[in-house]
Amino acid sequence: MIYLASKSPRRTELLSQIGANHLVIDVSVDEIINPMVNAKENAELLSIQKCQEGIKHIMVNQMDELPVLAADTMVVMGEKIFGKPESEEHAIEMLLELSDKVHTVITGVTVGIISGDKAEFHSITVDSQVEFSNLSLLECKKYCASKEPFDKAGAYGIQGYGSAFVKEIKGSYSNIVGLPIHEVAELFKKLNIPFWLN
Amino acid sequence: MIYLASKSPRRTELLSQIGANHLVIDVSVDEIINPMVNAKENAELLSIQKCQEGIKHIMVNQMDELPVLAADTMVVMGEKIFGKPESEEHAIEMLLELSDKVHTVITGVTVGIISGDKAEFHSITVDSQVEFSNLSLLECKKYCASKEPFDKAGAYGIQGYGSAFVKEIKGSYSNIVGLPIHEVAELFKKLNIPFWLN
Repeated sequence: MIYLASKSPRRTELLSQIGANHLVIDVSVDEIINPMVNAKENAELLSIQKCQEGIKHIMVNQMDELPVLAADTMVVMGEKIFGKPESEEHAIEMLLELSDKVHTVITGVTVGIISGDKAEFHSITVDSQVEFSNLSLLECKKYCASKEPFDKAGAYGIQGYGSAFVKEIKGSYSNIVGLPIHEVAELFKKLNIPFWLN
Repeated sequence: MIYLASKSPRRTELLSQIGANHLVIDVSVDEIINPMVNAKENAELLSIQKCQEGIKHIMVNQMDELPVLAADTMVVMGEKIFGKPESEEHAIEMLLELSDKVHTVITGVTVGIISGDKAEFHSITVDSQVEFSNLSLLECKKYCASKEPFDKAGAYGIQGYGSAFVKEIKGSYSNIVGLPIHEVAELFKKLNIPFWLN
């Protein structure tokens, strides 16, 4: 059993997919991007921050000292990092920017393990490429009407209606959804965390 | 509304993902590979056969004359086509062959449209590449114990426990699951078949 410091139902589903039993804990971190470091380091740093908040939450609430998994997923194109859209206009702007181009999705994952009064952190980052088809303004508007874009980095979900927009991917699919399964499974093996193979 | 001439719950899920309402009809076709043509043509021919059986089923049972979608997915490496495994030994043999290598997944999709006493068929084939990690015999045995390999071409499911084995993909993820969503959506647009965008 582990704690998942993320409210994303997609991450819960991905952990369940590999039989990793987990409890969701509610942590909140201001997702502030550090312009001095690149997107990969930002994703890693945010996953570490979320994990640290998770560890604090466990300590403060005197919960069982199980490992804590946290993750942060970003959409990046060129120098620009795409977060979650703040409005319909913002979502449409993002979608039209991603239209007919290849972008990168980066997920930082950190597992924190409590030992005594300290915690050890193990982080990985994974990136995947996504090629979008050519989207019309009408298609973007219809997509916004579905409400799917609003809680997602880059204003789309590859596991929902947004799948119709994705021409091709390269790398890890689950990474684009929000948690890179293969790499997380490898980390679980190393750290002796139970899942279907361990 | 369309008919889906496939009992695969994964195809039902993928059609639902893009809001394509459908009824499952039960057709059966002997999945015989024609050694005279390549894997892509075999996948296309099998999807046409399944679609024809679907059309017959509708005619014989005097059902509403809605479009029929059928699909066939194959796993291919080199000259070899991997079907569904017939036993645990067979599944292990397949998995160890795919281990640490890149293979191709091909899906043929055919949509049949009834007009008068004839039917028009529209077919596409899509291929994606999958890179497997290095699997041990023990991992293959554990995987077989989950029963996941047995109804799947190539003896694995990318949307289940098998996701832990997949290092990287290139192309369409949904194609590897069993139905290439983006390309099916494009076909639905062309044929005016309703889904979330149409």
